[in-house]
Amino acid sequence: MFQNFDVLSSPDQAAERIAALRAMFEAWGVDAVAVPRSDEYLGEYVPECAERLAWLTGFTGSAGLVLVTATSAHLFVDGRYTAQARAQTDPSVFDHQDLIATPLHSFVGTSALKGCRLGIDPWTWPTAAVKRLETALEKSGGSLVMLKRNPVDAVWQDRPQPPLETVTIQPLDYAGRPANEKLEMIADAAADAGADAIVLADPSSVAWTFNIRGQDLPSTPHPLSRAIIPAKGRPQLFIDKRKTGIEAEAYLTQLSELVPPSSFDEALVTLGKTGSTVMVDSEVASHAIPMLIEEAGGTARTAPDPARIPRAVKNRAEIAASASVHRQDGAAMVRFLAWLDAQPPESLDEISVAQQLEQFRRSTGEAMQMPLRALSFDTISGSGPNAAIIHYRVNTQTNRRIGRGEMLLVDSGGQYVAGTTDITRTIAIGEVPEEQKRFFTLVLKGMISISVLRFPKGTRGMDIDAFARVALWKAGADFAHGTGHGVGSYLSVHEGPQSISRRGSQELLPGMILSNEPGYYRDGAFGIRIENLVTVHAPREIDGGDAPMLGFETLTLCPIDTRLILKDLLDPAEIDWLNAYHARVRKDLSPLLKDDPALSWLEAATAAL
Amino acid sequence: MFQNFDVLSSPDQAAERIAALRAMFEAWGVDAVAVPRSDEYLGEYVPECAERLAWLTGFTGSAGLVLVTATSAHLFVDGRYTAQARAQTDPSVFDHQDLIATPLHSFVGTSALKGCRLGIDPWTWPTAAVKRLETALEKSGGSLVMLKRNPVDAVWQDRPQPPLETVTIQPLDYAGRPANEKLEMIADAAADAGADAIVLADPSSVAWTFNIRGQDLPSTPHPLSRAIIPAKGRPQLFIDKRKTGIEAEAYLTQLSELVPPSSFDEALVTLGKTGSTVMVDSEVASHAIPMLIEEAGGTARTAPDPARIPRAVKNRAEIAASASVHRQDGAAMVRFLAWLDAQPPESLDEISVAQQLEQFRRSTGEAMQMPLRALSFDTISGSGPNAAIIHYRVNTQTNRRIGRGEMLLVDSGGQYVAGTTDITRTIAIGEVPEEQKRFFTLVLKGMISISVLRFPKGTRGMDIDAFARVALWKAGADFAHGTGHGVGSYLSVHEGPQSISRRGSQELLPGMILSNEPGYYRDGAFGIRIENLVTVHAPREIDGGDAPMLGFETLTLCPIDTRLILKDLLDPAEIDWLNAYHARVRKDLSPLLKDDPALSWLEAATAAL
Repeated sequence: MFQNFDVLSSPDQAAERIAALRAMFEAWGVDAVAVPRSDEYLGEYVPECAERLAWLTGFTGSAGLVLVTATSAHLFVDGRYTAQARAQTDPSVFDHQDLIATPLHSFVGTSALKGCRLGIDPWTWPTAAVKRLETALEKSGGSLVMLKRNPVDAVWQDRPQPPLETVTIQPLDYAGRPANEKLEMIADAAADAGADAIVLADPSSVAWTFNIRGQDLPSTPHPLSRAIIPAKGRPQLFIDKRKTGIEAEAYLTQLSELVPPSSFDEALVTLGKTGSTVMVDSEVASHAIPMLIEEAGGTARTAPDPARIPRAVKNRAEIAASASVHRQDGAAMVRFLAWLDAQPPESLDEISVAQQLEQFRRSTGEAMQMPLRALSFDTISGSGPNAAIIHYRVNTQTNRRIGRGEMLLVDSGGQYVAGTTDITRTIAIGEVPEEQKRFFTLVLKGMISISVLRFPKGTRGMDIDAFARVALWKAGADFAHGTGHGVGSYLSVHEGPQSISRRGSQELLPGMILSNEPGYYRDGAFGIRIENLVTVHAPREIDGGDAPMLGFETLTLCPIDTRLILKDLLDPAEIDWLNAYHARVRKDLSPLLKDDPALSWLEAATAAL
Repeated sequence: MFQNFDVLSSPDQAAERIAALRAMFEAWGVDAVAVPRSDEYLGEYVPECAERLAWLTGFTGSAGLVLVTATSAHLFVDGRYTAQARAQTDPSVFDHQDLIATPLHSFVGTSALKGCRLGIDPWTWPTAAVKRLETALEKSGGSLVMLKRNPVDAVWQDRPQPPLETVTIQPLDYAGRPANEKLEMIADAAADAGADAIVLADPSSVAWTFNIRGQDLPSTPHPLSRAIIPAKGRPQLFIDKRKTGIEAEAYLTQLSELVPPSSFDEALVTLGKTGSTVMVDSEVASHAIPMLIEEAGGTARTAPDPARIPRAVKNRAEIAASASVHRQDGAAMVRFLAWLDAQPPESLDEISVAQQLEQFRRSTGEAMQMPLRALSFDTISGSGPNAAIIHYRVNTQTNRRIGRGEMLLVDSGGQYVAGTTDITRTIAIGEVPEEQKRFFTLVLKGMISISVLRFPKGTRGMDIDAFARVALWKAGADFAHGTGHGVGSYLSVHEGPQSISRRGSQELLPGMILSNEPGYYRDGAFGIRIENLVTVHAPREIDGGDAPMLGFETLTLCPIDTRLILKDLLDPAEIDWLNAYHARVRKDLSPLLKDDPALSWLEAATAAL
């Protein structure tokens, strides 16, 4: 099993660990220290050795930070994690702050922290955050101290070793574009901008550019690595040779010089000493990177990561691979849903459901010779009130038996060499109350609204986010997350810059893959989410129109539970979409389910409404 | 008549005027001069004495600028004005640049202008534009020269005098909030921010704050004036005493010290010399304002104009006055439309239609003792292909006879003491082709979509703009303007910061008035726009919902031409909205049209679909 259901932390040891940290303040010349969830790669997930926030506080959420002063400790999390943070931490050690309403830089300006010397590890903060802290501290007579070593590492005695998982070469059939071409494109971008080199600080950009993948993190298949790509000359790839087998080493040596990650600092200093102008994306890079270049006399110029847009805009091979892997993943989902329906109600709990789903993904992958390499993220398996917790991770403490008449929300995905999947289905367990069906239908209307949308070139995600919400708005409801995020090609399941949300300022470009996942959550009662992945199709002519229009093609293939639909609330066009979608699901998945008992379930589940 | 239909400029004199300007370059120590459409108040409209761009070039559009070097002259306009700019200017004098694609600051960085000393009048540019120019010029080895006097004024011999139109006091019944309260609110904003004073640079903010109106501009009823409001002490109002009668002078003297506009510079310098910290909104203020303060030793801190949001959020009295004036304006529109329908086809031209409409607004206003004080803007009266020109202003040269089977687009509005109106109706003249009806119906769908929308607190204009477009997008079409702009209370018909558009980042707040005006334009063929004004209503509970929702109430009362509707393209809910709207129009306007032949027309025009 990839997923474990252990309780990941306990509040017990925080007091002692915080005390150990405080004992170092004098030696470091600081009055306080701030530790974020991010590690030196600034990604969404961190390896065990970089779970510093969890180790120090007990809080295991995917975003947050702690500020430790000599006499207080303040844990900052956003609205998603308020309840979880309180449950996981010792109230005698921490007070709680809202990461959005009172961000750290405004907090450090308060009178209690006047004149504070605040220590941070510049590897774990992006430049924008560092600048905000610096400004706020200077205003209140304090200062920001760049620590030479990560403050948690200094006191974490039995800290695990950094991961050394094997690097694999991504086959060209799935990548669609050879690495040497991508490297040339990036070198040209540096040359065109009059820079000497570009630092690729985002491991996903490195993986995309070199056509490699890894397993350093449980869910994101990029190796933790960085690269320096000069306008002219040989790229440097900073990766531990213990990760590369003979084949990958030979492949990568053709493309670049392989340098140990421990020499990355030195390489930045060398760039600085030679007076180089270096492009770095300050939104994805640790502040330490421009800092080291500039301290050594170079110029760090912020510029968007040149791999970001080409990575988001999938090529034909990537789209074809994704479509294929979505058929396979759909077959696994159908096996799972058929199995689920066959179980006696009240015999299921959230963990067994998640385990069974992983099992179906594994066995389907083995049968189709496209094995499941990882889960895209820990499966969210929430029933009844647990489904209302948007980022619910079931563990042995929270696990509950699924009651008759409840809805079960399962949000899951698989990482396969051919692509990354992410799907949510909300399933009726027995006969569900009318009120819950009403909201299921309203969520479905939002999801269909995005699915059928046509839009002109230049449209941004933020322009269309509200289409997923308007049916809920009319009913006095909404959901507190974006409608969709970008998804990588056997890379991060949360990939930027594309998104469908209030903040989605990136233009939607043909080839981008995004999720379409409206929801509705009633605290303490029930939760609904329906999610398909879609790809932006090229502009298509419309009869009698002035300009070809973009739109979405749905990648995800899996029935939507029609037992939860109040048909009267759907327009004829919505019913047409659903029937056509189900017909396609049946047609595409049936050949994969020959001689499988799930086939008859699929036929029933996709019958026209 | 308020509106004239003269051809406003000719290209003939530009060569000579440009030559006169160039003759001054040496004395000013510059190699080039840039002259924008804006005057020292940075408003949308300028008085005759400040029509500098038109005087210099012949171009009369509402946005643009000219860059004059020793050997060339470049006119910069946006896409709306490309054709007009070419038609109005001498091709042997000017070349044409795209204001958006090649803004001035990127143009001055080109090699042709290397090392250029560019002269500007800092009163006619906002700070952000000045900074961009400065950066670009410094990069290319040039410099920005702040001229002591406006360069056009130096060569414009018979320049008209600045306007001295009478200032009136806005009755409290319509303003809803006394001026002394507003002044206190602004003084408190300065005090709370630790500043010594606030400069109100926007004449609309001055008019709103002091509850005064004026007639210095043809369409925007604010006097051209500015104010300095100290955190403690007496406000200064910079206004020519020749504009204030005895009553207004007595009223204003109670509130403030009246200072001649010519002493404004001096007052800024005094603020600087006393080391004051002054809040200025750099988005609405001339760069000269912070410049003079800072050069004299003060601190100019940019902060949003404190009158901007309270002015946009209308109080109960303002909304009631607006609703009342919309009934009156609706009655005038109905009289106009009834008259129009009674004319023999092919007997009408665009100018006579606009004149007749103004006449109906005048006579209705006189009858109801709420006279028409001005047009909100020059009426757009475009038929056939002219309707496709979004900002069409008919003049004696462009005027055309309206043909049978064409659509006539009339976009107009009245300024009344009780409020500002803005309405567009597109009217069938005879039997219009099916294709044009199809697009009329699609535009109507977008307009209804906004009208019926419910949305949660926090929703911005940009979140909902696309609802006005989605029916057109589906048909392969779109329109190249925002869906709606803010509207003032007997103030500017284009009022910020509220808008429904891609750039509308302002949250929609209860009490804001906006237009709802989708359109469709087929170049050289036909144009459609349907516009109502709406006000954001307070959040209302919805049965079974979680949170009360905002929405719009329609202010404009006037039939929509049902002869242009293809009923089959409307959903039942859309037909319901239209029928309910027409029933309301009939009910509210009928009492105003007793014994008027237009009453029977109204009854027919509002019959249920």
